[in-house]
Order: sequence, then structure tokens, then C-alpha cells
Amino acid sequence: MDQNSEGRPVKRQILDMNAFDASAGTGQASSQLKRRIANVGASAVLFYREPIEIVSASGTWMMAADGTRYLDFYNNVPSVGHSHSRVVAAVTDQIGRLNINTRYLNGVVDRYLDALKATFPGGLTNVVLTCSGSEANDLALRIAAASSGGTGIIVTENAYHGNTSIISDISPSALKRRALPSHVVTVAAPSYTGDDASVEDAFAADIERAIAELARRGHTLSVFICDSIFSSDGVYADPPGVLRTAVAAVRKAGGLYVADEVQPGFARTGDAFWGFARHGVVPDVVTMGKPMGNGFPMAGLATRPELLQRFCEETGYFNTFGGNPVAAAAGLAVLEVIAEEKLQENAAQRGAQLKRRLQELAARDDRIAAVRGAGLFLGVDLCRPGTTDQPDPELASAVINGLKDRGVLIGAAGRFGHTLKVRPPLSLSEAEADIFIDRLAETLTDTRG
Amino acid sequence: MDQNSEGRPVKRQILDMNAFDASAGTGQASSQLKRRIANVGASAVLFYREPIEIVSASGTWMMAADGTRYLDFYNNVPSVGHSHSRVVAAVTDQIGRLNINTRYLNGVVDRYLDALKATFPGGLTNVVLTCSGSEANDLALRIAAASSGGTGIIVTENAYHGNTSIISDISPSALKRRALPSHVVTVAAPSYTGDDASVEDAFAADIERAIAELARRGHTLSVFICDSIFSSDGVYADPPGVLRTAVAAVRKAGGLYVADEVQPGFARTGDAFWGFARHGVVPDVVTMGKPMGNGFPMAGLATRPELLQRFCEETGYFNTFGGNPVAAAAGLAVLEVIAEEKLQENAAQRGAQLKRRLQELAARDDRIAAVRGAGLFLGVDLCRPGTTDQPDPELASAVINGLKDRGVLIGAAGRFGHTLKVRPPLSLSEAEADIFIDRLAETLTDTRG
Repeated sequence: MDQNSEGRPVKRQILDMNAFDASAGTGQASSQLKRRIANVGASAVLFYREPIEIVSASGTWMMAADGTRYLDFYNNVPSVGHSHSRVVAAVTDQIGRLNINTRYLNGVVDRYLDALKATFPGGLTNVVLTCSGSEANDLALRIAAASSGGTGIIVTENAYHGNTSIISDISPSALKRRALPSHVVTVAAPSYTGDDASVEDAFAADIERAIAELARRGHTLSVFICDSIFSSDGVYADPPGVLRTAVAAVRKAGGLYVADEVQPGFARTGDAFWGFARHGVVPDVVTMGKPMGNGFPMAGLATRPELLQRFCEETGYFNTFGGNPVAAAAGLAVLEVIAEEKLQENAAQRGAQLKRRLQELAARDDRIAAVRGAGLFLGVDLCRPGTTDQPDPELASAVINGLKDRGVLIGAAGRFGHTLKVRPPLSLSEAEADIFIDRLAETLTDTRG
Repeated sequence: MDQNSEGRPVKRQILDMNAFDASAGTGQASSQLKRRIANVGASAVLFYREPIEIVSASGTWMMAADGTRYLDFYNNVPSVGHSHSRVVAAVTDQIGRLNINTRYLNGVVDRYLDALKATFPGGLTNVVLTCSGSEANDLALRIAAASSGGTGIIVTENAYHGNTSIISDISPSALKRRALPSHVVTVAAPSYTGDDASVEDAFAADIERAIAELARRGHTLSVFICDSIFSSDGVYADPPGVLRTAVAAVRKAGGLYVADEVQPGFARTGDAFWGFARHGVVPDVVTMGKPMGNGFPMAGLATRPELLQRFCEETGYFNTFGGNPVAAAAGLAVLEVIAEEKLQENAAQRGAQLKRRLQELAARDDRIAAVRGAGLFLGVDLCRPGTTDQPDPELASAVINGLKDRGVLIGAAGRFGHTLKVRPPLSLSEAEADIFIDRLAETLTDTRG
């Protein structure tokens, strides 16, 4: 049990509450499941009590080995839609032509870098391409440390920023038997109460307290890093601008602000291409990943040239696969599809449709304690009837499994695991959004017992 | 300047000596080069004084934008040959069908895991797939620490193991203005003097000294990690078995042995599929990367189930892109091509051909001080005429640039940067091997002035 900046104990939700439990034994498991467990051992992180074998996927639909068709409301990596023909064609064309590292010049790579840079506010003109969001965040912390000279790091209570050593150390939701190291202090994600100014001020006050707590522990502030939509904390998007006063406090203390856009980036929030842009702040470093290549392994960061320079003077950085031309071709196709298919607009429209219909459900079902989020990243809190402060993770689990039985895949988030994470591909259609709501309504009715 | 386990100062060669120097200004540079520098800033790691723009590649040949065709004696990532049709077909087929994470079961992924596991000695039955060798090594150190309980790490003097924070800290060749941290002690790579037993004993004695030095600094041994062919130290392959006594000493001190197979793995040495197998040792953890997917971003590690279990009890590990079915399809194609095209045998035969012809050159040219290595990973030391202990990195640079002018791409390694790194794709033909030798002979003649 860790403590946050107020000294309050923090319960942590370990990764995804919906995981298959291999330690329960595989006596009754399918041969396919036994084979997986034999191959990957304790590192298995499968979904559902009976994990699903998927054989193909297209658009918002995934096909299982037993013939079941699932509407995918979970996966944000294939963000422009599973197996999108444009991305497939771009990868297919480029991989048959050239796939090398960035020690050679190549036109495709710079066309992609130019297009990517055009999405950032002024100043963030240098890009480093990596293989994973974890690598991007790992590098971002070191870029920040090289410039700030500090060692203290502020993250949110249930943050997840990736899997490398120093990034696991700032990811409370990934730690099991061990506490956060002393240079890491947590703050609660800003939760909306209806009074915009008070949330912004409360969040900034939390950050001030965290800076003071770090000082008490002998650490000056290096960096405040947050997911701009606080997804693993339970999806907190509002009010826009909530980060402004906090970021100013971070800079006043000599720290840098890193925006982790792995979740909200690439148009998902509908309001803006990047999550930080909704809040009217310009980060010192922006990290990005998951949807960047629609599943092709690629990630990266953008920063100011002088910050990158300072880090590179200390440590030589090279990434063998980062920025290869196949990744660049995939990334370029993703940017083009987002623009041409107006996926940011679609995220805004389908997100509004889902939010409206979820609020209608909430009006009829007092176990739905909150509906929030932006675009196609919504959080739905499930609580004991009529309450907003008595989380019901068992109900969330029942809903997730009930939806699976009805052909819809979804997960949960938040430190109590009671927040449904509504996060379909950005290509979601109006009819598919309605299918989800209808299945959810049926499932909720069933769970009344 | 760091010190090794004998307290001797160690000069470090920073990454590749053949790098383009952006700090020299880009006044005369091509527009393509200026564009790259503007995009990636100080993180640019380009080859050659005038970096080459490559547009396509096939087999062992790379095609430049100006029409020049280069024989590729540098790249070990496209190990079965650039743009290999089998790998391209496997990626093309799978990416149009399904590309998801390992939270779902998928037959392609387990077919690959089964095939990969079949290459390892008994005991190493759990595999974790990652995106990069850096991620694999980052995880390997933590798996080792969870079991050993120690904090001290032994690496070779000019080692390179990757780019994450904790891996940069154990990569002397990546550090510029800063020293190695106190928990890291270096040993010289085992250099062959003609007496097998004495090299093995001397290397083990170095390891014992390093363990004692760590103890003096307050660290018990956690792990000894080395590249089984010591590539960035200058390519040291012989004698086979040289690691045995050292590894026994590591285990006696309670440490684990991690074999970094990113360079020698996947049949490159000709003698064995894995570099550690040449030395008759079984590692606690094996890490792999670069050639694993012939350029598709993928890497991983293999270890014993109980070691993985101990780590996973502390920290939840999930890798979004690691083990996706497209990577698995690429990896499976690579394993099939290595077997069907008998690339391990070809590496042995072409390696023997190259070594013989290089030794013939050495007999006629007293600036070639040593020829060593295994299979298609050879090192050629260039020294002042008639010496073996006066490295000539300027000559190495002249040879690299002279070979480039003759249509052959090659790099250098070692802590003085005077070792030519001979490392073509494993599909190298007899005629291509001869072309390289002929061009090298011409270049050496030219450099006599």
C-alpha cells in the first residue's frame, strides 16, 4: 500500500482486472490455452476466465476460432480499424522494397517525420522514433532529468506508463508486491465535480503538495508525467484546461511536463488531435505509441531541440528498429486515413452519441454512477445502487463477461476496477455504437438477477 | 574515463566511429540531409561524412537514390537477405488478417513460440516476446535481480546492450560525458592468444576480480551479461568454451548469467544456432533481437519458468506490441528460411572462405594485425605496419570510406575503432564474398598512398 501526496493510503488496481488467472491451474483449460501457458509461463496476461482464440479481424469486428463475431470496444491500437486496407497496403509495399535503420537517409522516413511534426504546437520540432511507448517514456524521463537536474517524479495514483525498469517504477498499476520508490510521489487524477475552476485549483494544489513531499524526501522535481486522459486512473477528461495551473506549478519548481499521449493521442478525444491540446498546455516532451501504426510496432516522442541536445551530449541514443521505413509507411498511412476518413470528427460524433445514450441508461439505472470522457474514450462508473462512492468491481466484471457472451469485448479501469473503459476503434459506425448500447442495456438488466 | 576490474583506465569508443557529425554544421549538406537533421536534431546517428540515401534493397544489395548499388557487409538485421520474399509474404498475409496483442489466444503466435523454444537447450522453456533487444535486456536484468537478490553487474569494457535507462548504464560504448554507475564493473573481452586454457582462465580471473571489486563497492553480484561474440568489443569468438569457467565463478558468487544473443544469434556464427552454444554453456536468461524478424520490430528472451515467475510476482509485465501475430509470422518465416536455405551451413562456409582470403591478405599486408571471428561475423584489426598493439583507427576510417567509394558498405568496432566489422547477411554467395575481398584488397592498396 503506497501513500499519495496527502499521506492517504492508495489501493492499487493491478493491470487489468479482467485477466485470466493462470495460478488457478489449467486443469479444465483448452489445449490452446495450456500450450500458451507452457510457452510464456507467469508472463501470460490473457483476458477472460476462458480466453478467446481470435483468428481474424476487420474494422470494428474480431472473429474467434469458434466462429463467434465480436464487436471490439476495447482495442485502441488498431485505431483506424482492424486490418485497414490503406495501412496493410502501405506496409506490404514498403516491406517488399526496403526495411533498414535510420543510419541511412530515406525519403519515406522524412515524409513521415514532416507529417507528424505538423500535428504539434510550435517548438516541439524534434522527433525520436522508438519501438514502443515504454521506450519513448523511458527516454522522455532521461531527457527531462538531463535538463531539470532533478530526481523527483510526480505521477497519478493508478498510472501506467510502460514496462521498462524506470517506467515500471512510475507505474503504480504495474507494481504488485513492492512499493513505489522514494523519488516517485502520486497525485489523484483530477475528478470533475461540476465546478471547473475548483477542479483545476485542487489538482494544482495536489501537485504543490507532491513537490513539497518530494523535497521532504530530498528530491527536487524533475518531471510531472501524465496521460492526458488519465485512462488507467478511470478516464478523466474534463474540464478542458484542468492541467494549466498544475503545469505552471511544475515549471515554477524547475520541473518539466511530459504528456503521455499513448492513450488519448491520434484524434481519439474528438476535440483535438492530441489530448494535451484539449487542455491548452504545451508539454516539454510528448510521448506517443499504441495507435501510431495501427498495430505496426512503433512509437516515439517530440520535444524541443535544446532538450534533446542536452540528453544526447551525455548518452548516445540509437534505436535499431525505431524509424525504419516500414514503420514510417504505416504511420503515414494512419495520418492520411485519420484525415481523409475524418476520424477525429467521427470520434467526436460517435462519442457524443455514446455519451448521450449512456446517460439515458444512467437515468434509468442507479448503478451507473458516472459517465465521462471525451470522444471515443469514455469511462462508466458502476457502483452500489444509488451511490457514487461505493465502487462495484464485481458488477463491472459481470458486465464485462455478460457483454462477451453477447459478442461485445470491453475492459475496465480505475483503481477499484469499477470503471468500464469504452474505447472502440475510431472508425466506429452509428449502427455499431447502437449495438453496443443495446447489448449493454440487456447485460445490465440480466445482472439485476 | 572509467576503470575496469584491474583499476586500469578504459578508453571508450562511442557508438560507431563512422558516424556523420551533425555538429560540424550542415552548410554543404544535401537538402535531404538538412531535412533529416531538422527532424531528429541531436539524435541523428547517420553513417559516413556524406550519408547515403537508400531507396531499396534485395538480398545482399542496397540501392541508393543516385543509382549506386552497394554490397551490404554491415547489416545483420536483414539476416536472411534484404526484402526476403518468404518474410515479406508472411508479413503481408498476416497483417491483412489479424494484428492484435497477446491478451487473446492465436495459433500463429504459439506455432512461433513452439518453433523458437525448440532452438534452446532444456530448461529455457518460457519465452517473453518484446519489441526490441533493449526491452529484452531491460527485462532480463530485472528477472536476474529478482532471483539473485544482488545489485552488482559485470559487463565487458566496450559493451553495448541497448538504449533504455538501466541498459545504457551497462553499455560503456553508449556513455559520453558520464562514468559508469558504481554497481557496474567491466572486464576485458577474452582475447585469443593461441593458448585456449590460458584465455579461459584469464577471463575467469577477470570475472573474479570484478566480483571482488563489486563487493568492495558494497554490491553483491546480480548478473554477468555478455554478447557471446563480443561484437562491440571488437569481435572475439575464440576459443570455443572460453566462457565456461567464468560462468561457473558467476554462479558460485550467487549471480546469474545472461547471454545477449542480439548479435551472434540465429545461426550467424555458423558453428551453432546460438552464440552461447559454441561455448558449451547454458545461460539463465537468453536475450535476442535484431535478426529475429529480418527487420520486423521484434525481440525477446527465454528463461526458466521459476525465474520468470519470481519476477512476475513483483511486477506486472505486459508488452502491447510484443508477440503480435504479424511479428510471429515474420519470426516463423525467418526460422523456416534459415533451415530450408541452410543458412547456418552457408554462414560456416562463406565465413571460412572470407577468413581464408583475409588471412591471405594479412600475409601480404603487415597493417592487418589480426583476423578473427566465427561464421559471418569476423573482425579485422588494422594497426601500424608490423604491429599488433598500435591500433590505426584512421586507416580503418580510410578503408571504410574507400570501400564505400567501391560500392561496399562496412563498419568498425572495438574500443579503438580499428577493427573492421565483417557482417553481411547470411545469404551471402561465394561470388559476393570474393567481390568484398577484391574491393578490400584494392582499397588497402590505395591507402598505401
